[in-house]
Formats: sequence, C-alpha cells, structure tokens
Amino acid sequence: MKVHNFNAGPSVLPNEVLYKASKALIDFEGSGMSILEIGHRTPPFVAVIEEARSLVKELMQLDDDFEVLFLHGGASTQFLTVPMNLLESGETAAYTDTGVWSSKAIKEAKLFGYVDVVSSSRERNYNYIPKDFTVPAQAKYLHITTNNTIYGTQWHHIPETDVPLVADMSSDILSRTMDFNKFALIYGGVQKNMGAAGATVVCVRKSILGKVSRNIPSMLDYRVHIENGSMFNTPPVFPIYISMLTLRWLKGQGGVAAIEKLNDRKAALLYGEIDENPLFRGTVVKEDRSKMNVCFVMDKPELEEEFLKFTKKEDIVGIKGHRSVGGFRASIYNALPLESVEVMVEAMKYFSMKKA
Amino acid sequence: MKVHNFNAGPSVLPNEVLYKASKALIDFEGSGMSILEIGHRTPPFVAVIEEARSLVKELMQLDDDFEVLFLHGGASTQFLTVPMNLLESGETAAYTDTGVWSSKAIKEAKLFGYVDVVSSSRERNYNYIPKDFTVPAQAKYLHITTNNTIYGTQWHHIPETDVPLVADMSSDILSRTMDFNKFALIYGGVQKNMGAAGATVVCVRKSILGKVSRNIPSMLDYRVHIENGSMFNTPPVFPIYISMLTLRWLKGQGGVAAIEKLNDRKAALLYGEIDENPLFRGTVVKEDRSKMNVCFVMDKPELEEEFLKFTKKEDIVGIKGHRSVGGFRASIYNALPLESVEVMVEAMKYFSMKKA
Repeated sequence: MKVHNFNAGPSVLPNEVLYKASKALIDFEGSGMSILEIGHRTPPFVAVIEEARSLVKELMQLDDDFEVLFLHGGASTQFLTVPMNLLESGETAAYTDTGVWSSKAIKEAKLFGYVDVVSSSRERNYNYIPKDFTVPAQAKYLHITTNNTIYGTQWHHIPETDVPLVADMSSDILSRTMDFNKFALIYGGVQKNMGAAGATVVCVRKSILGKVSRNIPSMLDYRVHIENGSMFNTPPVFPIYISMLTLRWLKGQGGVAAIEKLNDRKAALLYGEIDENPLFRGTVVKEDRSKMNVCFVMDKPELEEEFLKFTKKEDIVGIKGHRSVGGFRASIYNALPLESVEVMVEAMKYFSMKKA
Repeated sequence: MKVHNFNAGPSVLPNEVLYKASKALIDFEGSGMSILEIGHRTPPFVAVIEEARSLVKELMQLDDDFEVLFLHGGASTQFLTVPMNLLESGETAAYTDTGVWSSKAIKEAKLFGYVDVVSSSRERNYNYIPKDFTVPAQAKYLHITTNNTIYGTQWHHIPETDVPLVADMSSDILSRTMDFNKFALIYGGVQKNMGAAGATVVCVRKSILGKVSRNIPSMLDYRVHIENGSMFNTPPVFPIYISMLTLRWLKGQGGVAAIEKLNDRKAALLYGEIDENPLFRGTVVKEDRSKMNVCFVMDKPELEEEFLKFTKKEDIVGIKGHRSVGGFRASIYNALPLESVEVMVEAMKYFSMKKA
C-alpha cells in the first residue's frame, strides 16, 4: 500500500529509489555487502558520491567556478558555516527575513559580524515575499530563503543585486528552472526534493572563499571539504546514496525543466481548487504562493478536524498545517505524483459537496 | 551471499538489522511510507530516537547526569564541539596523542584554548599506548582516543585522573565493559560498532556544560540539543534508525558484557594465530593490542599481495592495512561473527602451510 504523502520533509521519494535502496541495503551491486557495510573510500562509494556531485552540477547547469559538496549537518549547520566562511568580523551581511528559517539564519550570522535585515514580512506572519528593499553596496552578501516551507511562500523573482547572493534552497532546490549561476552559494538539506535526511548539499563558488581572517575549524571550512572531494571525514554514506538515486531519477524524468512543468500543474490544480472551493482559503498573497508547500485554512475552523479525518480515510497523510499558520499544508515536492494531488482535490470537492 | 567483512568502518552490521531496515525502506511499520518518508517529529520516529537514546544509556549504565544525543557531523565535528563547549579561551586542556584521530582532535582544540599534549606515542608510529604521564591539575579536561583504528592500539586501563575525562570512542564504543560513569563526555561516530555512517553519539554530563563565556552557535551547543531532545533540526533519520536496531540487537545478544566475551574470543583467536604463524607478525606492543582492529604484517612483504589475493578467493574483504602501517588490518567489531575470524585464521594457516 502506498499513501498520498504530503509531508513537509522528510517527504515522499520516488518508488524506484526506494526499491533500489532497499536491495542495496542487503547486497550493494553484487558485493555481498550492504551499502552500509562498505568503506566510504572504496571505488563503489566514491563512484556514488562523484555521480551525486556531478548530477547536481549538471542538473543546475552550474559553471566551472562552482564546487558541489555533500556535507553533514543540515541547513541549520550552514546557518553558521556561511557567515563563518564569508563574513569578516566587523563586516555586514544583508539578510531577508521571510520566515522561521530565515530568522534562524540571521541569529547565527550575528555571531560572526553585522547583519542588516534589509526586509522582513514578519509583521504579516510571513504571508508574502518582500519586494522593495535596498541592499547596501558594501554588504558582503545577500541571503535569501528561496522557499519558506512553513508559510508557503516562494521567491518567484530572485532579487537582482550586485553583492554575492547566498540562498537556502532546502525546500525548492531542483524543483524549478532558474539561472543558478547568479548565486555565489546555494545550500539545502536534501530531505525534501533530493533525498533523505542526513545530507546537506552546498554549491559554492571557489572564488568567494578564503577572504576572511578568522581560523575556521576544519569541518566548517568549505576549502577543506573541496580539497578532500567532500570526504574529509566519513560522509553520511546512505543519505548521499539516496540523493544520487533521486538525482538520477530526476534526470530520467527530463531534468529540472520537465519536473517544473509537472510541479506547475500540481500547484495550479491544488490552488485552483482552494480558490474555487467555498470551504477553503489560501493563506498567502497570491503572487508569492509556493509551488512546493501549499498552505490553506477553512473559514469554518470547526470543520478542519473533520476534514482531516475524512482525508485520512482516503490515505492522504501529512496535510496538517504547521502550528505557526494552522489549517493545512500540502507539500507537493518533485516526487509527489500528480495522482496524489488529484485525489486531494477530489477529496476537497467531495467534502465541500457533502457540507453544502 | 555474505562475505567475511573486516572493513574498518563503515563496517559489518548484523544481518537482522539489515533485513529489518530493508523492509522499513519500503514500508515502515505498516504506515504505507518508507522510513525515509515520514516526518521526524511524528510519533513513530520520536519513538525510534528515544529508544536509541535510552538503549545507549541502559547498555552503558550511565548515571542520571548524562544526556545521550544523536547528532550530525561525525567525530570530526566533535573535535571542535568539545573544546568549543568546554574550554574557555586562555584555559588549558590536556590531550593524549595516540594516532591520526587524536592529532586531529588536538589541532581543532588549539583553535579554542591552550592544549597540553601530555603524552604521545608518535615517535614509534603510534604502536603503543603511553602509560607514564601527568595531567596538570588545572587542565579543564583530559582527552583520550580509547581505540586507535588505524594503528590497532587500545587503552586497556583508562587513566585515573581528577580532571574531567573526555573520550573519542568511535571505534570501540559498546564493545567492552567499563565504568562509563568515570567519563564527563563520550563521543563517537556510530559507523563501526553501533550503526551506519551519518550519526554521531554524544553522552555528556549536564553538569560540565555552561561554563564557558563564548557565544556558541546553536548547532554546536550541547545545551541546545539537550533542550530539544536531540531534534533541534531534522536529524539523520535513517542512520539513527540503524543505530536503534543495532542497539536493540546488542541488547538481545546479552548487552556489552556478553559481546565483550565474544570479542575477547575473536581477538584471542586472531592474535594467537599471528603469534604462532611464522609468516605473520603483529605491529603493536602486545599489552596495548586493540580487540577491534588487529594490525599485522608479513616478514616477507613480497608475499603480502599474494596473501591478499588468496583471502579474496575465500570471500575475506577489507583486510588491507592502512597506508600508515602497511600490511593487514582485520577489524573485528561487535557484529563480525566468530565464524569470520575462524575462516581468516584457517586462511592464514593454509597459506603458511603452502609456503612452508
């Protein structure tokens, strides 16, 4: 049995990835060993991590200044690693505050230098993406969170700026086309669109590194990880393997442009129903709606529990909204089939009809 | 087919762990979702991490001052996290230098305070454990690496000291009984004796925390992880699940005391053959020999390649020595069956007979 998995992350993965990984857990490529039992510096695993790194580069069409790393720690570790590597003490970095994760990134950056919060949508519970703001020319970089998982907003226009652009793309990486070469550094936990919890992808321009004077601990120094081919220490082997399989799957689907078309269809279908159905209402300013996390509430909150119970019977899981927003959040990442969105929309229609 | 897996880590895991995990990759406990697809804050995963944490506490018989955390980053991240949390700038920590990993821990600690290397076996390529050394009374803590994976040495007598004792136990954690309550902090990557690469276990006394004045980034602050029940951010879900299953398996085997007996038998068998067989010679001072990583060479190095080829035909894998020592290293962690050691010993006997 498979359910319709709208989890916000960790979240749905392609079936073929899971089946292949399940077999590799018993016998990895005929080695007589599990993927968990092989040395990380042996050729079979080196091939895995190298394929994962080069698929990211290929799928994002990154130029040669970029290095792709698979690290430990989650995006939360990058919140401190980014300023530690890029922001000299006494210098200023510009941050946009578009949700809980942005705020956490800002908090950590303040330990390393000055932070200029150039825009914030906090006063409206982060239900929109700020548009009019100025980035000081002397800012060392501008940090954005391209998609805000909790609030369901997404930057549909990446800000034009002369300072290096740094982005937390944890929840929409590889879900849509864009010129990724506009960025100086892109990072993300992989557990939403490109794998399983435990690995973190970092795409960093080599040319921005080595410009701060502080002593950086080895495990937090991007240059150390680059020199060591993302294997300074034992990497998170299995999460990286899952990423490699997921990236391979994405390439097989036609890459980012193809998955974007499907993601657009899924989002259009679900937002269309939210807008048409009298029982439901989106929580986000329309132009800033996320195509990954669809947040909505009911005008009659007393029906929400009932709707949840109803959808559960339809094998729909993971749609309870985050406590910061309430209501519902349906996460429709790359691996969620169109069929699951169709089932969800049917459930909304049917429930509404019953209540009419 | 299963091979005889003497890998140094990642390394052999119990079959029952792999089979259970392989099924959970497709359907975790009848949820219709993979273990990779469920939310980390949902009750089924909270139960997993809580069981893992409490099994560590139970199997090590830790007193109530200890908190057990499962973190990202590997032991290499602990090399910096330990001094960041425990060593005030200007204060001194005592370190013993018993191998590559100790040296790396020392290097990172120097970024945070003074390091007094109170003993080192470097001058003899780390083939013994230093015995006579003094720990200055004012040292903030003493750091040891209880087992040295690369060189095959192990501390069989934990130093008696009045300062808090900190240990990297990556390669012998839960392999032998000892009074773990003598320690103030124990850490280890779990990919040798207690799981798969990607999770790090930290057992820390709450009473030693909060005594340094520096600002500690959230992801590196033990107090933050304690407050958040080891879930400050998305944890490495699958590696933690594997640890939980491995810990459950160890408990089923009779716990640490029972596995120690088996480990003693395996080590005695293999070292016995090394000492008796005229072709082979151990590289480590006898009294300091590791019961986890057995290092040995041949007096006629030209035979080493031939022996490697011969053992390969017997499905023995992972015995090539680390480049720092050469020859062979057979890692005989908890999950390695006695049978594998017997096969190895038979191969040594047979090869020696052929060459006689």
